[in-house]
Amino acid sequence: MKKLSIIGSTGSIGLQALDVVRLHRDIKITALAAHSSVSKLEAQIREFKPDIASLWSEDAALDLKVRVKDTGCKVLYGMEGLIEVASYRAGDIGSVSNGAGIITDDISSGKAENVGISSCNHCSIESSGSYNIESSDDILLSAVVGMIGIEPAIAAIKSGRTLALANKESLVCAGHIIMPLAKQYNVDILPVDSEHSAIFQCLSGEHSNISRIMLTASGGPFRGYTKKQLETVQLSDALKHPNWSMGKKISIDSATMVNKGLEVMEACHLFGVAPDKIDVLIQPSSVVHSMVEFEDGAVMAQLGAADMKLPIQYALYYPYRRYSDINRLDFYKISTISFEKPDMEVFEGLALAYKAACEGGSMPTVFNAANEYAVERFLNNKIRFNDISGIIKEAMRKHKKIINPSLNDIIDIKKEVEDYLENLI
Amino acid sequence: MKKLSIIGSTGSIGLQALDVVRLHRDIKITALAAHSSVSKLEAQIREFKPDIASLWSEDAALDLKVRVKDTGCKVLYGMEGLIEVASYRAGDIGSVSNGAGIITDDISSGKAENVGISSCNHCSIESSGSYNIESSDDILLSAVVGMIGIEPAIAAIKSGRTLALANKESLVCAGHIIMPLAKQYNVDILPVDSEHSAIFQCLSGEHSNISRIMLTASGGPFRGYTKKQLETVQLSDALKHPNWSMGKKISIDSATMVNKGLEVMEACHLFGVAPDKIDVLIQPSSVVHSMVEFEDGAVMAQLGAADMKLPIQYALYYPYRRYSDINRLDFYKISTISFEKPDMEVFEGLALAYKAACEGGSMPTVFNAANEYAVERFLNNKIRFNDISGIIKEAMRKHKKIINPSLNDIIDIKKEVEDYLENLI
Repeated sequence: MKKLSIIGSTGSIGLQALDVVRLHRDIKITALAAHSSVSKLEAQIREFKPDIASLWSEDAALDLKVRVKDTGCKVLYGMEGLIEVASYRAGDIGSVSNGAGIITDDISSGKAENVGISSCNHCSIESSGSYNIESSDDILLSAVVGMIGIEPAIAAIKSGRTLALANKESLVCAGHIIMPLAKQYNVDILPVDSEHSAIFQCLSGEHSNISRIMLTASGGPFRGYTKKQLETVQLSDALKHPNWSMGKKISIDSATMVNKGLEVMEACHLFGVAPDKIDVLIQPSSVVHSMVEFEDGAVMAQLGAADMKLPIQYALYYPYRRYSDINRLDFYKISTISFEKPDMEVFEGLALAYKAACEGGSMPTVFNAANEYAVERFLNNKIRFNDISGIIKEAMRKHKKIINPSLNDIIDIKKEVEDYLENLI
Repeated sequence: MKKLSIIGSTGSIGLQALDVVRLHRDIKITALAAHSSVSKLEAQIREFKPDIASLWSEDAALDLKVRVKDTGCKVLYGMEGLIEVASYRAGDIGSVSNGAGIITDDISSGKAENVGISSCNHCSIESSGSYNIESSDDILLSAVVGMIGIEPAIAAIKSGRTLALANKESLVCAGHIIMPLAKQYNVDILPVDSEHSAIFQCLSGEHSNISRIMLTASGGPFRGYTKKQLETVQLSDALKHPNWSMGKKISIDSATMVNKGLEVMEACHLFGVAPDKIDVLIQPSSVVHSMVEFEDGAVMAQLGAADMKLPIQYALYYPYRRYSDINRLDFYKISTISFEKPDMEVFEGLALAYKAACEGGSMPTVFNAANEYAVERFLNNKIRFNDISGIIKEAMRKHKKIINPSLNDIIDIKKEVEDYLENLI
């Protein structure tokens, strides 16, 4: 039986992943982590009976712990909790690490057995470097938003778990660390983004080099707008994505096309191609989820309804497909599929993403950190829509690139960017 | 080094296959067969230096033999020659069968060594039933048009050669014989039709059942015509295919959409699906070469320039892709891809094909034989365009279905259909 942990289980991707699990009833949920939705996570614990659960804040975790006392579920919190969920392999319940993030009766009463860092999966691997991966049926779905996803992704890989990756920032900022690590631990990274899943499906069974990737984009709610028109758009407009149902952060990123820029960087790492081999292609109806051209000139494309359950399920059951209850495409009704070239002068965030991808090193982290900062301010109505790309541009201008940043460098850079922008604005 | 024989080497597919061979210069041409183009075949013999060559008529073969006397190429003729080319495995030059179709100095002077049916590849296999297939790098490209391709296809399979199949009739009429035989001899059948190659590429690396095939069609030169408009179309109009450069027979079949009907039947055999799981989808620009929907609702599509060199090369190098000099798709320029439902009341040949496919047994042979007869008469200006489907309909109405026809039954049925139609018209 497949075993699945989800970080970000109460978010859009997490909820849809649990819908997939409900449909098939043959995946065991082993661990869940959420940001702050205590009630939602409690309901998930009661329904799916994970061994451990985690929330971001200690207070929320304490509240949850009281609520689920009867279930036997261990409750953790903070980054340590997140990492624990990410690296937890079912059957390991006795060996949950004795970190700061743990809230259990056992720990609090000093009765815990087999605890401590030395018996924690991701740590023991780090020390031995020779972990024997017995099963690819143990999966972490990383569905958190933001750079917070990087460390859990690394922990999952080190614990030998297949990484189903919806968190873009893991590869955008730390792809140069994560991809070689996955190779070292012989761990599959299965993309959960609709576009990357499509590319991954196009590559399945192929014995040829990629000649070009056509990464499709809906164009977002402001497709066809001029830069001037963008000056006056409001938050409520930016949140209205034409095709996909998504979280707020990613909805804004789609509106600026920064999301597509992050996807370009992610694709570079996932598929080992240079940015200039990736064309962003506006396909307004989101029917074509992406395409790959091979060296013979043939193009493979993956198409489907705009429903995230499709790529989520594909990652969970890969390499097998399973029945899904999502809508089917009816090409007699679809009638036309259209394509456009994105306007990178209007959607400057996309142009800056290409620039960051080409520069590499720490620049994608700067791009991403500045965008995270700017989007949060836009969501709080502190800045205007066009300021987002302006802020990214300024952060990139200011930054002195580090060629091969470590994980600590990446975390530091995020902080530096935030501090710089905080003082600037 | 891959070894390739081609039957139909001077036809459209044969010529394009030789273009592919010219481009890469790493495939050895071992045998060639053509219908009657003596000069073209002579030029091919001089350029590609096959061990054996064959023409359909004895007279043409005698002419060729005189012309290529200096090359050492054995010259054969008739069905025996065709079968010899089909089943010839390089290195076997000493064991060319002593059938009626052989014209060589050795044979005519009685000096041939190791000749005779018993040492012929396809025959020895038939008797032993345990041929050890050493190499899938030995390929027959069957690019002849019509039911004449069935016996060579069987011979190729029995000789353990990979069968690159452009001849539709082999599977349409004898798919129930050929597919199990290929399985028995562990021989790959690689489709060369653009649509079937696309489906085959969509299936590559898949671990799921096909839920639906969308077999694309350009709609031919008369797309959008009414039945009344079709009454007055001329041969010259019917030969003008909008996208593909093809032979005359297949151009007419495209105009009637009988070609698409034959492809539906072929796809049923190749991919093991029922006719009702195959939708014909008009895609006028021929950019999408076909699509497959899987049980999760995902659709994989293969797209490319309308250039037969793409599927030909894919079959010759499968499972590897190689560089090709065909045009690349530029989606920024393509702008739209459109789809339509075919009008089966106007294009009755397609409706009749579905009927024949559903009935199965000998009915596809009747459909095909009647169409071959009718198209020949149309090409000779003896009948009108709409008469083609009328003739097919009448032949199917008259026929009493044989459930599991043998190869002899199939050949007999073709003759019966022709005789019936000859007397009728």
